[in-house]
Amino acid sequence: MGDNFGRVVETIRRARDRADLILTTGGLGPTEDDLTKEAIAAVFDEELVLDEESLRHVEGFFARRGIPMPERNRKQALIYRCGRAIPNPNGTAPGALLEKEGKIVISLPGPPREMLPMLNDWVVPYLQGVLGEQRQILRSRILRFFGIGESALEERIRDLLPHRNPTVAPLAHTGEVHLRLTAKATSEAEAAALIAPIEAEIRARAGEFLYGTDATTLEQAAVEALAAAGRTVAVAESCTGGMLGERITNVAGSSAVFRGGVICYANDVKERLCGVPAALLAEHGAVSEPCARALAEGVRRLLQADFGVSITGIAGPGGGSPEKPVGLVYVGLATPAGSEVERHQFQGQRHDIRYRAAQVALDRIRRAAARESHPR
Amino acid sequence: MGDNFGRVVETIRRARDRADLILTTGGLGPTEDDLTKEAIAAVFDEELVLDEESLRHVEGFFARRGIPMPERNRKQALIYRCGRAIPNPNGTAPGALLEKEGKIVISLPGPPREMLPMLNDWVVPYLQGVLGEQRQILRSRILRFFGIGESALEERIRDLLPHRNPTVAPLAHTGEVHLRLTAKATSEAEAAALIAPIEAEIRARAGEFLYGTDATTLEQAAVEALAAAGRTVAVAESCTGGMLGERITNVAGSSAVFRGGVICYANDVKERLCGVPAALLAEHGAVSEPCARALAEGVRRLLQADFGVSITGIAGPGGGSPEKPVGLVYVGLATPAGSEVERHQFQGQRHDIRYRAAQVALDRIRRAAARESHPR
Repeated sequence: MGDNFGRVVETIRRARDRADLILTTGGLGPTEDDLTKEAIAAVFDEELVLDEESLRHVEGFFARRGIPMPERNRKQALIYRCGRAIPNPNGTAPGALLEKEGKIVISLPGPPREMLPMLNDWVVPYLQGVLGEQRQILRSRILRFFGIGESALEERIRDLLPHRNPTVAPLAHTGEVHLRLTAKATSEAEAAALIAPIEAEIRARAGEFLYGTDATTLEQAAVEALAAAGRTVAVAESCTGGMLGERITNVAGSSAVFRGGVICYANDVKERLCGVPAALLAEHGAVSEPCARALAEGVRRLLQADFGVSITGIAGPGGGSPEKPVGLVYVGLATPAGSEVERHQFQGQRHDIRYRAAQVALDRIRRAAARESHPR
Repeated sequence: MGDNFGRVVETIRRARDRADLILTTGGLGPTEDDLTKEAIAAVFDEELVLDEESLRHVEGFFARRGIPMPERNRKQALIYRCGRAIPNPNGTAPGALLEKEGKIVISLPGPPREMLPMLNDWVVPYLQGVLGEQRQILRSRILRFFGIGESALEERIRDLLPHRNPTVAPLAHTGEVHLRLTAKATSEAEAAALIAPIEAEIRARAGEFLYGTDATTLEQAAVEALAAAGRTVAVAESCTGGMLGERITNVAGSSAVFRGGVICYANDVKERLCGVPAALLAEHGAVSEPCARALAEGVRRLLQADFGVSITGIAGPGGGSPEKPVGLVYVGLATPAGSEVERHQFQGQRHDIRYRAAQVALDRIRRAAARESHPR
């Protein structure tokens, strides 16, 4: 381990020689490999001492799980004598702050679910205080589109791309496209005023594909649309195996609109639970328009939901044929007004095909719910 | 866009001045923002010309989706006059190779699912050819554990941690711990011979928690154990909403062992589909030991599987109480021999709680299947 320690010390030393602010992540755990604070202490000639409040936090973490704290975890409560701990609400390892020799050293734990809240809730306000008000700010707004490709979207807004403030940058993701509008300004209000007219212009040209802004996901948009319409949904998933339900229920509050679903992986489950006739399966197969329709209608009935959504397809790598190649997916939607099935041919590997199928289903739910809220 | 182009050119120029091998990812798409090849051509005084084979590949990609190729995508088939294209089996954008002025420049597309296969299947063999045989190789083997914490595992193998060849490094992940054994050697065989005795020692001390090696996931281990035992499984998911089914079905070939499941999000779905008695729900609530047991038994019966697995809990952020706090999860397992329920109290945010619950369920499936294969 001496070797590792030397390398970490060397890295911290180089950072100190080059920068005034050093931010580290990771290496705050209980094991002998976790050497970040020790290396910083060595470089800045600082001592690590037990921080009582941090120790209580670590002990409490284990107490809540009903297990004794391993002796090794005391190490996590060691903080610089002339520094202070940074609270970690989501894990055992507190962060550590050291201000010394005109330098600021901030150490956060590695796991993003612990690190990110600490960065947002503690480090950013701390740095704003230290650095004072910035003269210029950068503010971005993301417009999120589904159902239109990157090229096609760019064709519609080509003349806006050379715009300088805000800049307009297309970003392609699996199964969707985002536009990032970034404004330079001296205030939030000025940034918003710069972005607003460009956003309005983009909405006028491609608004029918826009499902949300900033961090809104397609599943959030679907759940919000259902809630606004006062409608519920149930799912019948074959090739996605639960991914659609998983994504819907990853939205906090989805229980008000999500009834549940059937993972109808085996054919007889499609038949017995979702009421797909055996003759239909024999004639058309499970990956077919009639089967997708019967699944959507069946799960809607079975779970007494307003909307029933079904996904049946061939995710690969095996199971494809010339007539039904890998990537062929049917997405069905049953509503009180009737049912419709979309046929899609996706490219990519197993996970992509499943993800894209779930994207299509979420967008169909969102659109169906929006139609109920705003009937023409 | 002129601004962006200048920055990319500047970056490429700096790389050229510092290194003999330049590897870029991203910027090979059809939009005006995609400038990687253009910038490399500018720095190396090279010309971009249409590569007929790449054009056919891009056109074929669109043809298979049944849509005409947007004119803009022709750009993706432009390759250096003195270079060559790198085939991309999973997307439209071919990569590009340029060997000039004693430098090698390799450009790959950004999406990992396109980039990684190209890196493994084309770039690595190419570089091995260019660089000749390496004198020394580094080989790693990962041992993957579930059900033991990082500290507890380290206590068992503390004396092995200072080992130098192979090195032994603990790596903590959400809900599991890995040990990475890395050997320096002059051949694969020598590396394997260095790793074997240390691995055997670790297995002797903590083998009961080891579920797989290298890239094996817990869901793969579960599916493989089921296949080896000739057993099937069905799932009843409440708070995980489909995540367990999604993970099982993400393993290619899972259809041989996975019957399907019920996403029993609403309580009446637990009752009507999985046969949980209304009186039980009224007395104990949905997040309870008896409900988890009834769900596991009910879904096993309903879907005619050998094993039934259930998950019911409080994923938060809302819905917790002093008696049933956020993070409380019951995982049930029903087998031909009877049923058992585990109670867990997880920490973390909604997604972590759901993920950890699915981890526990997968490990229970794996252990139950292994017991059937190797009865005592």
